[in-house]
Amino acid sequence: MAKEPKKLADLFHDTLKDIYFAEKKILTALPKMAKATQSDDLKAAFEKHEGETEEQVARLEKVFEEIGEKPQGKTCAAIMGILDEGKEIMEEYKGSPALDAGLLAAAQAVEHYEISRYGTLRTWAQELGRDKSAKLLQETLDEEEATDEALTELAESVVNQEAQSEAAE
Amino acid sequence: MAKEPKKLADLFHDTLKDIYFAEKKILTALPKMAKATQSDDLKAAFEKHEGETEEQVARLEKVFEEIGEKPQGKTCAAIMGILDEGKEIMEEYKGSPALDAGLLAAAQAVEHYEISRYGTLRTWAQELGRDKSAKLLQETLDEEEATDEALTELAESVVNQEAQSEAAE
Repeated sequence: MAKEPKKLADLFHDTLKDIYFAEKKILTALPKMAKATQSDDLKAAFEKHEGETEEQVARLEKVFEEIGEKPQGKTCAAIMGILDEGKEIMEEYKGSPALDAGLLAAAQAVEHYEISRYGTLRTWAQELGRDKSAKLLQETLDEEEATDEALTELAESVVNQEAQSEAAE
Repeated sequence: MAKEPKKLADLFHDTLKDIYFAEKKILTALPKMAKATQSDDLKAAFEKHEGETEEQVARLEKVFEEIGEKPQGKTCAAIMGILDEGKEIMEEYKGSPALDAGLLAAAQAVEHYEISRYGTLRTWAQELGRDKSAKLLQETLDEEEATDEALTELAESVVNQEAQSEAAE
């Protein structure tokens, strides 16, 4: 018997496994980033986002439930690469006044990956008539966009302070 | 003599090498994505973005020039991971009605990585007083955001058509 060609529902399920894996990896990275930063504001932002990420994982589990699948991750090469770059920053810029700027950039790369994935999944859920899932995915998308905006504001103030402290040296 | 701690100017230079490497990889990926798609609109979008990407590479070379450095790439684990996921889609969904939806999602993940990097680099260029570079980076950022929006619109129509063709089977 010929194998059935994969459909949009399969793509939705595959991508759900991808972001589920990614969120779990992010959950292990955030405490390390919170520990590495020299800025109290950034530390607070990372800790707040850790709590949100836990809720986002729980929302994904509800989406798996709506499509009748077991929550399961699938190695996501993208998030591994993005987080590796963040780890590199933590190592190469340890003790540097530019460390926080680098950590912020790494966190924003993570946010943007998530924004693209949740936007895609939300659109597919709508097309597939999975209204409950579309609503859950939209909630997370809104949260990720708000986090990205908060990081942008922080980046402007943190980077500004650090650039000035470098100039004063 | 103790090694000088890395500063914001170093972080800017390192991240410039990262996105320069990424843009060159994207230039090799776009023709493959244009060849793989079943949608004329998507093919046109990929081809248009290939032309823009060439200009974006040229802009990066001007930024290297402003900071007195030779244009040089540095392996970017993030873009490698993101493009690997796109390659996986092309293989796993070949001949599937969901292929284009998957290609669009892969392209949007690429765009969002670039949006995060160009936003970061633009902010740092401003802080470092590199006004010409900040302007060039802003131009590319605007282009990437416009591309992402165009892909979102395409995603809604392409995915909708394909979902309907699946339902009619």
